[in-house]
Amino acid sequence: MKLHSRVLLAFVLAASVGLTPGMRAFAQTDPLASWNDGPAKQAIVEFVHATTDQASPQFVPPEERIATFDQDGTLWVEHPIYTQLVYCLDRVPAVVNAKPALANVEPFRTVMSGNREALAKLSMDDLLKIVAATLTGMSVDEFQAEARKWLDTARDPRWKRPYTELTYLPMIEVLKYLRANGYRTYIVTGGGQDFVRVYSEEVYGIPPEQVVGTAGGTSYGYDKNGRPFLTKEPKLLLNDNNAGKPEGIHLMIGRRPYAAFGNSTGDRQMLEYTKAGDGARLAMIVLHDDAQREYAYGPALGLPDTKVGTFTQALYDEATKQGWVVMSMKNDWKRVFAFEQ
Amino acid sequence: MKLHSRVLLAFVLAASVGLTPGMRAFAQTDPLASWNDGPAKQAIVEFVHATTDQASPQFVPPEERIATFDQDGTLWVEHPIYTQLVYCLDRVPAVVNAKPALANVEPFRTVMSGNREALAKLSMDDLLKIVAATLTGMSVDEFQAEARKWLDTARDPRWKRPYTELTYLPMIEVLKYLRANGYRTYIVTGGGQDFVRVYSEEVYGIPPEQVVGTAGGTSYGYDKNGRPFLTKEPKLLLNDNNAGKPEGIHLMIGRRPYAAFGNSTGDRQMLEYTKAGDGARLAMIVLHDDAQREYAYGPALGLPDTKVGTFTQALYDEATKQGWVVMSMKNDWKRVFAFEQ
Repeated sequence: MKLHSRVLLAFVLAASVGLTPGMRAFAQTDPLASWNDGPAKQAIVEFVHATTDQASPQFVPPEERIATFDQDGTLWVEHPIYTQLVYCLDRVPAVVNAKPALANVEPFRTVMSGNREALAKLSMDDLLKIVAATLTGMSVDEFQAEARKWLDTARDPRWKRPYTELTYLPMIEVLKYLRANGYRTYIVTGGGQDFVRVYSEEVYGIPPEQVVGTAGGTSYGYDKNGRPFLTKEPKLLLNDNNAGKPEGIHLMIGRRPYAAFGNSTGDRQMLEYTKAGDGARLAMIVLHDDAQREYAYGPALGLPDTKVGTFTQALYDEATKQGWVVMSMKNDWKRVFAFEQ
Repeated sequence: MKLHSRVLLAFVLAASVGLTPGMRAFAQTDPLASWNDGPAKQAIVEFVHATTDQASPQFVPPEERIATFDQDGTLWVEHPIYTQLVYCLDRVPAVVNAKPALANVEPFRTVMSGNREALAKLSMDDLLKIVAATLTGMSVDEFQAEARKWLDTARDPRWKRPYTELTYLPMIEVLKYLRANGYRTYIVTGGGQDFVRVYSEEVYGIPPEQVVGTAGGTSYGYDKNGRPFLTKEPKLLLNDNNAGKPEGIHLMIGRRPYAAFGNSTGDRQMLEYTKAGDGARLAMIVLHDDAQREYAYGPALGLPDTKVGTFTQALYDEATKQGWVVMSMKNDWKRVFAFEQ
């Protein structure tokens, strides 16, 4: 064996068994590589150290390590319209096809017309009718199959990519970093629980049972062969927004989170509830201030007010007062999407 | 080194690295030691092998391994009265003390009288009033503290032991055996979700987030110091009995179980729903036919009919027809309770 072969072999061995500290450091990568150094990144790292180091006075036993994440605007793009609402609008033709009488009934007539101006003027009541008509009245299995098909084919108009690629890489890193440190990560979303569960495992690594969302009832019945199945009913069980978030967390998890992440007034109570617990608690909130790489909106700091994801100045002031950490998309995130190099 | 030292060393090394099959077998203990050999025990072992052996055509990926257990009459004693109802009745004096006007209102007057005959005649409507008055109207934290205090001090009149010791050892073994094979075990109970969550971790090794039960709403608010808290409200969100069990499983877990365990007509739909899935599915049902070691009841096979845990002949016939496995407490369980030697 020549000298350089032996040196190479020694390196390979050292790397594979992790014997030399230098090599170990070299092999380790920053779990939050898409974050710029700054107070937001630092807050996450310090929280994890404080709650997982056995010597820390703020150590949290593994079974209590719960972290909750809003989805729209926190884990993926919510602007200019929630993805699930796009799904519902896209489903309207199939619903009208199945029940042709709906073609002459509002708001379905407006949706079928394709008139964008009229569409933008639909009221919340109209939207709820569309949501009920497109998300209920079918079996759970049928709904899952339809949603999956749509997710595989639909494309966001700005980035021309599947919606499931419009997740924020820095937040995916936080999910993985927390899980690597014994945290169970939950989605706590105002969006539909059944919708998010269709893709949460492959997109976020979060299994269906760790998705808490706005949930309707189901009803148990039998098909013509006597085989039982569940039908999605237009009956609201949990409106997982605002106060509904801590209420939903109690219902579905039964523990107060140690860390919570949000981006709008709909997350306020979840962040308050999390932060009000004993010991080290982390509350963080995304500020959409990056019109170039994503969007800039929410009236905090003079950003434009929009219909979705309202980050008000009052919320910003509460964040400051209560010690929530504001994540500036523009300043704290080195990279926004995985598909950007 | 002398010869016998070397032989000893060889044995130690072989045992520690698991080289000799004989040593391995010696170290293993039967995970279902409290079960008599028979079709019930065999069904459990065969199900676990079929779904966890990678070479099996019925192999189930670890993330899909969900097993659900009814509690009352399946994991612990439910006869002659559900433990949680004993808790509610014991709480009535405190409720009346806080609201003295209730002392003259039925059904509280009857409960306060201590008249056992009158108590036994209370209607379902009366009981629901007692349940609402004793389980709601306080904060989640207060409820948990009260329930814990009661569980620590209350004693079952027959066995003179804490109620939490009246769990069935064979079923505790099934819980552990399934978990050791990658299953996540859930309680799916008609009892109160918040009540069972207080002790589920220490008694069954099941964390609060894996307890699905009859659940009421909570409301988010602030105390006088501005600290947020949740109040338990008398508003039913999920009646986790009968059809409510598969509906609750969909709401809280979002996956169909591979194994389900019950003991009464209230578990019928959960067992049907589980068994209707593809691949290997296990549905098992406890028959309380052991008056000596526990109780004998449920009109199946001519056992006495009682108010709780109705195992009807029709349910028995459905079990036979659908391939559910009946566990006879008398014949299949070698030991019923851990405290019995």
